[in-house]
Amino acid sequence: MTRIQADEVRITLEQILLDRNCPAGHAAKVAQEITRNSLEGTYSHGINRFPRLVGSIDQQEVRTDVEPVLMNGFGALENWDGRSGLGIVNAWFCMGRAIELAKDHGIGCVALRNTNHWLRAATYGYEACEAGMAGICFTNTIPNMPTWGAADPRLGNNPLVMAFPWKDGDILVDMAMSQYSYGALENAVLKDEQMPFAAGFDAEGKITCDPAAVCASKRVMPIGFWKGAALSFALDIFASSLSLGNSASAIGKLGGERDLSQTFIAIDFARVTPGNEAEDIVKNAVEDLLASTPDGSANPIVYPGQRMRSIRERNLAEGIPVDERVWDEVKALF
Amino acid sequence: MTRIQADEVRITLEQILLDRNCPAGHAAKVAQEITRNSLEGTYSHGINRFPRLVGSIDQQEVRTDVEPVLMNGFGALENWDGRSGLGIVNAWFCMGRAIELAKDHGIGCVALRNTNHWLRAATYGYEACEAGMAGICFTNTIPNMPTWGAADPRLGNNPLVMAFPWKDGDILVDMAMSQYSYGALENAVLKDEQMPFAAGFDAEGKITCDPAAVCASKRVMPIGFWKGAALSFALDIFASSLSLGNSASAIGKLGGERDLSQTFIAIDFARVTPGNEAEDIVKNAVEDLLASTPDGSANPIVYPGQRMRSIRERNLAEGIPVDERVWDEVKALF
Repeated sequence: MTRIQADEVRITLEQILLDRNCPAGHAAKVAQEITRNSLEGTYSHGINRFPRLVGSIDQQEVRTDVEPVLMNGFGALENWDGRSGLGIVNAWFCMGRAIELAKDHGIGCVALRNTNHWLRAATYGYEACEAGMAGICFTNTIPNMPTWGAADPRLGNNPLVMAFPWKDGDILVDMAMSQYSYGALENAVLKDEQMPFAAGFDAEGKITCDPAAVCASKRVMPIGFWKGAALSFALDIFASSLSLGNSASAIGKLGGERDLSQTFIAIDFARVTPGNEAEDIVKNAVEDLLASTPDGSANPIVYPGQRMRSIRERNLAEGIPVDERVWDEVKALF
Repeated sequence: MTRIQADEVRITLEQILLDRNCPAGHAAKVAQEITRNSLEGTYSHGINRFPRLVGSIDQQEVRTDVEPVLMNGFGALENWDGRSGLGIVNAWFCMGRAIELAKDHGIGCVALRNTNHWLRAATYGYEACEAGMAGICFTNTIPNMPTWGAADPRLGNNPLVMAFPWKDGDILVDMAMSQYSYGALENAVLKDEQMPFAAGFDAEGKITCDPAAVCASKRVMPIGFWKGAALSFALDIFASSLSLGNSASAIGKLGGERDLSQTFIAIDFARVTPGNEAEDIVKNAVEDLLASTPDGSANPIVYPGQRMRSIRERNLAEGIPVDERVWDEVKALF
């Protein structure tokens, strides 16, 4: 593990994208957000993921040279076609559109189809927070999780974000519908560790904490068992139907995770909450939560999003921790 | 257990409310929805809950004679004060307002404060579906669940609904953030049964499937462990901040579960999805899900909301199953 300054990371990623004829604005945006993901501790969707993104570009699964186009709009509701473009560019644009619609209508909702992996879901929640708005967004994915009672993966793990701006550190939930990501399972396999809670089912259909067994069976556990499976399906129905895009089921037939469907909602709550009352409500709720009695476990009592700031500050000061092999792989993309 | 025709139930409940000087429109609405809850299989929030509601009315915790009032509005975003009125009346009204706003803006969002228990969360999702719209709604509750790493309950279990209309049976997720409700735990205690999955923590802080231990410790398990705790907090922040109402923390100081905060979103997706494309997307996704390979367990493979229709049809034909003691208790309220 080495530490590299964020600016060096960003400039390196940007140049690699420019070398592939990615338009300058898109290259800058993608490099900035991927760097930020690592800076803020979401390493799995930061630098570590960059070689895979470049692979998708080189294989022409992701088109770098397109912008989303409006399909339909009515008031504060729009749907857009991402034209198989860069997932970060499309998603950032669509949350931006939702924010613009919310400025006019108090709330805005944009559905997006035919887009690619948006990398870190939280990015678009923070985008809303930076505009002073609450944000909700979700995406579907390739089928990677069985529904409850089933053995074959027909649901996506469909990350969901709820974000609420707060001056002392935004409230931000970014959660997939599987208890553990395949990335987390693979890391545990490499370290020869068991997961602390049921990670899924083994090939015989027994519930197991063994990450290798779940990676082999492809039967990850939904959060809350039947509940997470149901919520995953609902998120998929919303994302695909609002955008007239692919459901997880349809994505599964494409070969590779592409042409996804997403939904972005921004709420300009300050329009209806004059003064500092909303801020005080958040402050009091956070303070009450953090005053919880610890249960004696090693699990820290935090509010969602709390730990991001300190990770960011440390990584800004000391550099972003990067696996040397990953960084070598990135530099080999020049 | 006996079976009583839905009309008899509805007329009985309505008369009991009228006898308490509940305005006729409110009495009819509350009786209708509580009857429907039992008719459609949500017994815990149907007739079984009616005596408790009447108790709250008799103790003047719930005011039967008020209507919600508009506090602020901007475009498609409004917040309303429920004035400690009937939870069903307030919530139905606010999803109705969200639907009206969505007719004008494509999407509508209404936040509600100072309301009472809405009984069955699904009610307001179905309300959106009946208007041909997608619906999202959520409520906070009294603090009844510890956050992750904590021993004392400072989060609500904050039910969340996502509903999408479909001609062959609406897609509807209605889920609390705790793995099991206290009602489900209490039922299991009565039957001397263990829960199939971790229900919470016992008094010593050990994870347990024993419902009696969890009822005693008040430490129910969030769905997906840390994930459900985080989502619960985010739902609470949204519901309380958008409405300038009570957070779960503030509700906990009131003594009793009252003056809750809720959020209602309706999306008139047909405005941007011409033709039958959205319907076909739902149909294909449902068919693909139901074609899952069974895992050999007794867990049925269903889409969320699927089982409601058959329960409703049976209960319409044969009458609603009601515990005789509960029905005696209801009739004693005359």
